Amino acid sequence: MTATGNNERLIEVDLADRSYPVRIAPGLLDAAGPAAAEVSRSRSAVIVTESTVGPLYAERLEASCQKAGLNTAVLQFPAGEKHKTLQTISNLLDGLFALDPPVDRQSVVIALGGGVAGDMAGFLAACALRGLPWLQCPTSLLADVDASTGGKTGVDHAAGKNLIGAFHQPRGVLIDVETLRTLPLAELRNGLAECVKHAVIREPELLSWIDSHAEGLQARRDDGRLNFNSDTMGELIARNVAIKARVVAEDEKESGVRAHLNFGHTIGHAIETLVGYESMRHGEAVSLGMVAENAIAAGRGLLPQREAETVREALSRLALPVCREGLDADAVWQYMLHDKKNRGGRIRMVLASGIGEVEMYDDITREELDRAIAVLGGAA
Amino acid sequence: MTATGNNERLIEVDLADRSYPVRIAPGLLDAAGPAAAEVSRSRSAVIVTESTVGPLYAERLEASCQKAGLNTAVLQFPAGEKHKTLQTISNLLDGLFALDPPVDRQSVVIALGGGVAGDMAGFLAACALRGLPWLQCPTSLLADVDASTGGKTGVDHAAGKNLIGAFHQPRGVLIDVETLRTLPLAELRNGLAECVKHAVIREPELLSWIDSHAEGLQARRDDGRLNFNSDTMGELIARNVAIKARVVAEDEKESGVRAHLNFGHTIGHAIETLVGYESMRHGEAVSLGMVAENAIAAGRGLLPQREAETVREALSRLALPVCREGLDADAVWQYMLHDKKNRGGRIRMVLASGIGEVEMYDDITREELDRAIAVLGGAA
Repeated sequence: MTATGNNERLIEVDLADRSYPVRIAPGLLDAAGPAAAEVSRSRSAVIVTESTVGPLYAERLEASCQKAGLNTAVLQFPAGEKHKTLQTISNLLDGLFALDPPVDRQSVVIALGGGVAGDMAGFLAACALRGLPWLQCPTSLLADVDASTGGKTGVDHAAGKNLIGAFHQPRGVLIDVETLRTLPLAELRNGLAECVKHAVIREPELLSWIDSHAEGLQARRDDGRLNFNSDTMGELIARNVAIKARVVAEDEKESGVRAHLNFGHTIGHAIETLVGYESMRHGEAVSLGMVAENAIAAGRGLLPQREAETVREALSRLALPVCREGLDADAVWQYMLHDKKNRGGRIRMVLASGIGEVEMYDDITREELDRAIAVLGGAA
Repeated sequence: MTATGNNERLIEVDLADRSYPVRIAPGLLDAAGPAAAEVSRSRSAVIVTESTVGPLYAERLEASCQKAGLNTAVLQFPAGEKHKTLQTISNLLDGLFALDPPVDRQSVVIALGGGVAGDMAGFLAACALRGLPWLQCPTSLLADVDASTGGKTGVDHAAGKNLIGAFHQPRGVLIDVETLRTLPLAELRNGLAECVKHAVIREPELLSWIDSHAEGLQARRDDGRLNFNSDTMGELIARNVAIKARVVAEDEKESGVRAHLNFGHTIGHAIETLVGYESMRHGEAVSLGMVAENAIAAGRGLLPQREAETVREALSRLALPVCREGLDADAVWQYMLHDKKNRGGRIRMVLASGIGEVEMYDDITREELDRAIAVLGGAA
């Protein structure tokens, strides 16, 4: 146990020689320095962050690294999914290779920020010098419970999200729950959508737990800052990381059960792309995706209608969208046909047969999708 | 054994679940289709080649794939090291994601060409959809004996060669020795430099073998085409692939003995960059690098002067350069300081204590480099 406090939670992501710890506690940003020093034999750390989070926390992270005896540098890129591109990676590489003293293969990259920062910093680490070690300091609930575990890194392409990237496991993840206090409420809900997803694919009890803590998790102070209880938030994150870590450990490269994590994402990604990354949050798209995919499962008689309703209500209580008019079913279908997870032109989708039980199907028909999009539009 | 002929040589690169065969035979291009069909579950192949080799062999490779029942597409980029950039990768990704039917994770990328094509196609495969399977059909001796085995992929950056990339092992390598007949003699010698390197780091007998076959390997017909004996060339390639495969199997990610393959490359890379990729071939730079690094080893009393001379003479007999005037020792030193293989500012270099015996050193001094550069310039 480190000096960061005695309420630290620890989850090990079990991937043989690529295993790493996910640590969860208030104040953990200050522990990043010692963690980085353990990883970097050349004692140099490059903090990669974006323009929203950098000004809030980069200085503190840098101070922690310097205190641990590391040379530090900060590379910052403009915030927002629209900058999650190969061009931004190219700019970051220019910055990285201009550093003096120069980076070497023992330099450690530290991702600071939400999901975009993690995806970008991770991919930068994956392709600089054919692979640098890296640590993650996620600062959004979405990154905490989802993106920070599993080693998926990458950027978007005009043809779709995350089409360019690599599997590159970090050496460790440090989740400072206090950084969530500066998160906009809508961003917190973004992460809660993935928590609901975890519950649906693996753990019905988590859905009840989220339901019963829905109010407290979303509480705000008068000044707008989130007012959650640190220990409750820590428990939420730890439960979700544990589910994600188990799935990833079973199937690191997504050739089997890891695909279960795509529940809600097959239709969700399509909606997100068609509506535009800038006008819809990822969690909102996933919320709609889960409702639509459950409609398909219910339509097949796979998922009891009552359970589809339970999920829908849980999402509603988290103020996540469960309906959306005007979606173009044909465009969604075409997008899915081009999704990287498809094989030889079949649409693959994870469907639930109950809360906590999902399976992959590859026989989704166009008629089923039309019906699901109609349900999102308000059809009974 | 396949139908490609009974003089096929096979070397297995032993990397646990990433193991793959390197096959060497005349006419093997025509066997690429069945090999690709074995790898691609979605039965689609994307041939990535460059503008010199594509017009010579892409059609034949495509026909082989189509005959094996695969959908095919060809992506071609401009030949030459100066196009080995992230920008060209970006262009290739645009082409890849515009294909119809779209690529999916079971599509196979086939690299067709020399080292640059392999590095580019391999890196494209590494970062498209977080990793596509790929095959290599190398068409230069340099690619045959070196780049095609080991999974190093990547592109250059203004700050140095191969600074951006990934370790991404191919699923197989098919070396059609007949494709070497269209190679310019100078390009053949490029590969012979790496063969000498393999001899120096692991196998003194190979150096004698190369010496005794030097003339036949470099023979030309009246029309300028190379006139080697296919079986002799096959043996040369197989012996070298076997050395490379052994080293890679011992140390896939270059944390240990794989660094021995950098013999001649620490100074060689620096010279190549400083002189300019376009005005000096890689093998020529490596030849100079080996002479210089042997001068350092001899200066330390590590390598008998007589053996340094043996290597130098072997290189000369292959018409590879062994001296170069006007090199700026300071610039070479600065470049090496920024080399990705360095750790914390020390210059690491592989030095020979005899032909077939090398070790890594990290205490190279500026004075030793100055002396080695002087030797290249003609100092006794």
